[in-house]
Amino acid sequence: MKRRQSVASAAKPAVRRNAASPARAEKLSLGQLDHHLGYFLRRLQIRVFQDFIQTLGPMNVRPAQYSVLLIIAANPGRSQAAVGQTLSIERARLARMLHELERRKWVARRANGSDARSHSLHLTADGEKALVKIKNLAEEHEARLTSHIGSKRRAQLMDMLREFG
Amino acid sequence: MKRRQSVASAAKPAVRRNAASPARAEKLSLGQLDHHLGYFLRRLQIRVFQDFIQTLGPMNVRPAQYSVLLIIAANPGRSQAAVGQTLSIERARLARMLHELERRKWVARRANGSDARSHSLHLTADGEKALVKIKNLAEEHEARLTSHIGSKRRAQLMDMLREFG
Repeated sequence: MKRRQSVASAAKPAVRRNAASPARAEKLSLGQLDHHLGYFLRRLQIRVFQDFIQTLGPMNVRPAQYSVLLIIAANPGRSQAAVGQTLSIERARLARMLHELERRKWVARRANGSDARSHSLHLTADGEKALVKIKNLAEEHEARLTSHIGSKRRAQLMDMLREFG
Repeated sequence: MKRRQSVASAAKPAVRRNAASPARAEKLSLGQLDHHLGYFLRRLQIRVFQDFIQTLGPMNVRPAQYSVLLIIAANPGRSQAAVGQTLSIERARLARMLHELERRKWVARRANGSDARSHSLHLTADGEKALVKIKNLAEEHEARLTSHIGSKRRAQLMDMLREFG
């Protein structure tokens, strides 16, 4: 399984680890970067994803895999194309991800009678069991995030991102 | 130069393109994903980066390269380690990026007299000229973002992200 070195080697969840990082001491001026929304978006996104990947470590699930599992769970029987469009995942990348999820026996692709080229996606019984565990870990991650940033501010940020995204 | 297919093939800036995307028609229920901050953070971050990459296309500069150029410009003569720590870029990845920026003759590494292993980073005259053009394009990107989300809400989002990040 691919996993970034920086995450795999971290001893504690990323949200807390970064807050107390000794690297802080060597921070330089951000210059013009201090005025770019993209920089701050990316910085927080990386920290949130690092914490997610680490918390989900016991199940070895990446954020993109998790999102695919949730979309299939919420929309059983829909096509690969519809899942890809919902999540804006490129066709080839989604195909690789689904191949991996089939290999783990969490997802099954069933051919549609009416169109031999179209497949509908379902979670297997194993996939459903795994998703229960995965969701519990994802809840831990979300709870840590909330305790870090505060539930009111988390809700405000969520509202803004929903609106823009 | 590496560039994602989805960005390279896009006809219009990503922020506008996505807003009018025909893919919208096939969106499925997000299920539990609708409650994850990380999902919405990542979604907006990708759209903002797509627009940045496309707007900066004439200079062929990626967001991470841009951030390194700005940090060197704002802190001339500082070490690779300090730049990496400020931006949380892994040592090996930053080394590859600096190698590329040296190849383009935008950045120069000078050995420090006191420590043969330590190098200080500077923009070259070519690098400074390039950065003027790059900053102008980055301003275009930022202005489009602001017109898309509104300057007041952009400022609110920026404040929240700064605080959390």
